[in-house]
Amino acid sequence: MKLLEQIAVATNLREGAEGIRDILASVAQNQKLSLKNLANTVYMPLPVVAAVRRELERRNILVRDKGICLTQEGLKLVSDLGIQSSLVSEDHLISIFKDIKYKMPEVNVTLDQAFASPETSFRRVTYANQYDAISGRNVILIGDDDLTSIAIGLNSKKKGKPKRLVVLDIDPRVIDLITSTSAEFSLDIECYLHDLKCPLPPNLKYNFSTVFTDPPYTLSGLELFLARASEALEEGSGKQGYLSFGNKDPDTDHEVFKIISQYGFVPKEIIENFNTYDGGTIIGNISRMIRIVSGTQRAILPSYFNRPIYTGDNNISQRSYVCSLCGEKYIVGKNCSHIHIEALKQAGCSECGNTIFNLVAKIQEGKNDR
Amino acid sequence: MKLLEQIAVATNLREGAEGIRDILASVAQNQKLSLKNLANTVYMPLPVVAAVRRELERRNILVRDKGICLTQEGLKLVSDLGIQSSLVSEDHLISIFKDIKYKMPEVNVTLDQAFASPETSFRRVTYANQYDAISGRNVILIGDDDLTSIAIGLNSKKKGKPKRLVVLDIDPRVIDLITSTSAEFSLDIECYLHDLKCPLPPNLKYNFSTVFTDPPYTLSGLELFLARASEALEEGSGKQGYLSFGNKDPDTDHEVFKIISQYGFVPKEIIENFNTYDGGTIIGNISRMIRIVSGTQRAILPSYFNRPIYTGDNNISQRSYVCSLCGEKYIVGKNCSHIHIEALKQAGCSECGNTIFNLVAKIQEGKNDR
Repeated sequence: MKLLEQIAVATNLREGAEGIRDILASVAQNQKLSLKNLANTVYMPLPVVAAVRRELERRNILVRDKGICLTQEGLKLVSDLGIQSSLVSEDHLISIFKDIKYKMPEVNVTLDQAFASPETSFRRVTYANQYDAISGRNVILIGDDDLTSIAIGLNSKKKGKPKRLVVLDIDPRVIDLITSTSAEFSLDIECYLHDLKCPLPPNLKYNFSTVFTDPPYTLSGLELFLARASEALEEGSGKQGYLSFGNKDPDTDHEVFKIISQYGFVPKEIIENFNTYDGGTIIGNISRMIRIVSGTQRAILPSYFNRPIYTGDNNISQRSYVCSLCGEKYIVGKNCSHIHIEALKQAGCSECGNTIFNLVAKIQEGKNDR
Repeated sequence: MKLLEQIAVATNLREGAEGIRDILASVAQNQKLSLKNLANTVYMPLPVVAAVRRELERRNILVRDKGICLTQEGLKLVSDLGIQSSLVSEDHLISIFKDIKYKMPEVNVTLDQAFASPETSFRRVTYANQYDAISGRNVILIGDDDLTSIAIGLNSKKKGKPKRLVVLDIDPRVIDLITSTSAEFSLDIECYLHDLKCPLPPNLKYNFSTVFTDPPYTLSGLELFLARASEALEEGSGKQGYLSFGNKDPDTDHEVFKIISQYGFVPKEIIENFNTYDGGTIIGNISRMIRIVSGTQRAILPSYFNRPIYTGDNNISQRSYVCSLCGEKYIVGKNCSHIHIEALKQAGCSECGNTIFNLVAKIQEGKNDR
């Protein structure tokens, strides 16, 4: 929207066009705000917001009437931008979502999959809506085994639809489920089966204003996913990211925030215990939400990324199991016939077909299993 | 405490001795936790916490009894460490605090002073107590015009005292008030009148496990205060910082988090609107709380710091006022006879003694007034 950029330039706003949109969204969502409350809501200094208000009044978008209000023209602008003026309750949608989620196959732990609870997926949508990150926006999900795209689609069926809703995932089972659900519920989700180690498809580059991602638990995984997030976002500052990532020890976390900074992002809010997972014991079934925004500077990743990104890739531990019925022994782990216990369970015991196994011993433990 | 370090080494814990203390504090504050809940409370992976539990059981500090419990020996250890086993309500203390605060002189805006509300000071204490950051700890306040040290002292009078409670401030009025209040209420606060541009006194270096700071609003101010915070903290990871700092535009905030990282800190939680101020219109009367922890790597600041750190130092704006009674004109600002309007009010009109002045014009506006 050229107009927002013009106003950002006219007022010399460091937050850019996104800052103007923030101000408009806040006015749309709060009736007759005072200038001070508006400034507090958008976290900008009062004189700066006053200058933007003046400019918006001059262009007949805002008017003063016992507080700051949108004119008819302003209401049309807000509507054209897709800004949602009030939030939709998602409670009645969670049961539909649970039915869809029920069709999801077992987690593939080699991909660091751990399915977020349905409440978590909707919590993400509600949280992002608070920051005007979905309605009327181009939204992309960098990996989506949590089916957050479906939660977004269901939540915005009646109003506040994203302009474009895109999912990338490496797991064909995830892409299949989202594709069929999107068709069934007319959610308009574009799905791409894609390995993020390869560059983004050209039609997805520099095109989004909001990104969701819940990367693998490793630093290299975080780096790859954030690099692709940065690549997907439009240029300019204030584009939003919703990054779910577990707590780490201080030195590892130091690296986490260096990576966030390196790819041009700034953490704006960190909320502990935001995400809960059905699986995911590696990260203790919970992780934090780090809301990030882009700055104007971005780093670029070399096109192809060849480092290992999943926890298991760095983990050389193997485990020995016995079948609980016939006592047949199995070694599970990297370079074994079964990569993890889920794979062994799925295959069943080759002697008796039983699917219950008891852990006997860890054979070797890698240093990087955190 | 050597024991904590020994256990951290024995269990190869990346969080170090502070991580062991975290685990003990969590057990002390929560009855009969399960291993999984303990792991979630301290944000560490379950197998890691299991290894620490084993070591603490071997040393007869923990025992299992329908959950994880402290032994008699464990209770003594926790008490020796000064870990507080339950939190004290602070409501009845706020009125005492308000009386003390009432004696505080006017803000000196050239020092970027803006007094936090009494509720804010106590909110900081309650928040830090949740993370076991005060009781039995060496606590330092890098600047304290908010009188948070007094809130800490009042809150911990009966139980959960810090081992050492130290305040540094450049404003003699702040130091005088804290010193006299400490004497009156036996709060044991050590006060130092100190310009942070000079190195810390040697007896304060590398001696604290918790730091509170609410720096000037500039990047150089943040850098100086965080550098001194880092210098004050004990070596090793997991030492805690409670940093109050206002929101900035994305590019400036990018620098904020680079500085946090550069001085060896990691943001663990960012809470918007945590601090409210009586003055402080520059930052819109509110700021966020950034809870940070140290990593093992720290940067060191060159001993003397000569860059300007206060907002006004970079702001070359001047304002012209007229006396509301006699109409005498005054220019206020840097290099004028009165540096800011508060100074002019304090002096009064040189013609008629009146203390009310009307703003006529801004003469020149600097670029850095944010």
